[in-house]
Amino acid sequence: MDVHFITHNPSKYEEASNVAQEFNLSIKWYDHEYEELQEDSLEIIARKSCLSIMQTKPELKELHFFLEDAGLFIKSLNGFPGPYSSYVFNTIGNNGILDLMKDKEDREAYFKSVTAYYDGSTIETFVGVTKGIITKSLIGEGGFGFDPIFRPDDNNQTFAEMTLATKNLYSHRQKSLRILFTSLTAFAKQ
Amino acid sequence: MDVHFITHNPSKYEEASNVAQEFNLSIKWYDHEYEELQEDSLEIIARKSCLSIMQTKPELKELHFFLEDAGLFIKSLNGFPGPYSSYVFNTIGNNGILDLMKDKEDREAYFKSVTAYYDGSTIETFVGVTKGIITKSLIGEGGFGFDPIFRPDDNNQTFAEMTLATKNLYSHRQKSLRILFTSLTAFAKQ
Repeated sequence: MDVHFITHNPSKYEEASNVAQEFNLSIKWYDHEYEELQEDSLEIIARKSCLSIMQTKPELKELHFFLEDAGLFIKSLNGFPGPYSSYVFNTIGNNGILDLMKDKEDREAYFKSVTAYYDGSTIETFVGVTKGIITKSLIGEGGFGFDPIFRPDDNNQTFAEMTLATKNLYSHRQKSLRILFTSLTAFAKQ
Repeated sequence: MDVHFITHNPSKYEEASNVAQEFNLSIKWYDHEYEELQEDSLEIIARKSCLSIMQTKPELKELHFFLEDAGLFIKSLNGFPGPYSSYVFNTIGNNGILDLMKDKEDREAYFKSVTAYYDGSTIETFVGVTKGIITKSLIGEGGFGFDPIFRPDDNNQTFAEMTLATKNLYSHRQKSLRILFTSLTAFAKQ
């Protein structure tokens, strides 16, 4: 059975497809911009997105598919920006986060990715987390989003300073995808 | 035909009920916590909440009902926190907003309320807006939420300094409710 990745973002599909190849899996792109609910938990948002997609696209009920949602969670800001990371990046940006963190000694943060997989009958979620800290200024020119202010543990570079190959080693998205693909491969071998 | 206000918040129902009495209208409380989508527009969120409520509670399709959603929009923060105002208040709070506004000369902001009304066949939205500025510090002990940092135009007090009666004169929620109730009363007289 083919596995479809539902996303409107071609780079996200390409990344997932590359990771899938490591597992000798081939995935198909289902180009669709779906709705996300306002919830504090990425797992609930991803699960409910699967349900709402099946309501608007009934043909998907017969397929195997997955989708992925991610966010940056900052400890001293009570998890902000969390599930609303894109909105927050598009409005107050990295400088906004740095302003909010100005007097915070605790710089702990993590990126979290949730992949929700529908196997034709139930939905399962897989989580990838990358822990690190929020820097005190913008560092690095590469990457996108919060990359210039996030430095993963065990490395002295921000995501924006790393080569893509190095950043991929720390990628929360690739972690959640690898758990899904491991589970799919194990299942196929049974 | 009875008009139902869908909210899980008893104070919101009480406020709406008091405003309705000015119009000799009586409204009924339909206690239900509904889902809200992640969208940049309150109008779209309110409309889609109506649709999703009718999917989960089919009996509502036969009733007349309304719901209300609101947010604080700050000009120099590109509309942040907007539709995510409760989440932002619960995580970074008023001090977070003040940190973000520290170096901003433009303090313009507005509270916006959208009431979405379903009349048994179509959904209509009504908008109430209250313009003002974000103060440079917390001022006043009353109110809730962003009240201590918002001062409406034409007044020298923040919402948190006002008596409830004065604050009601500026209430964005009451504005959108009054437009709805005016429209309902006009219709009833036809």
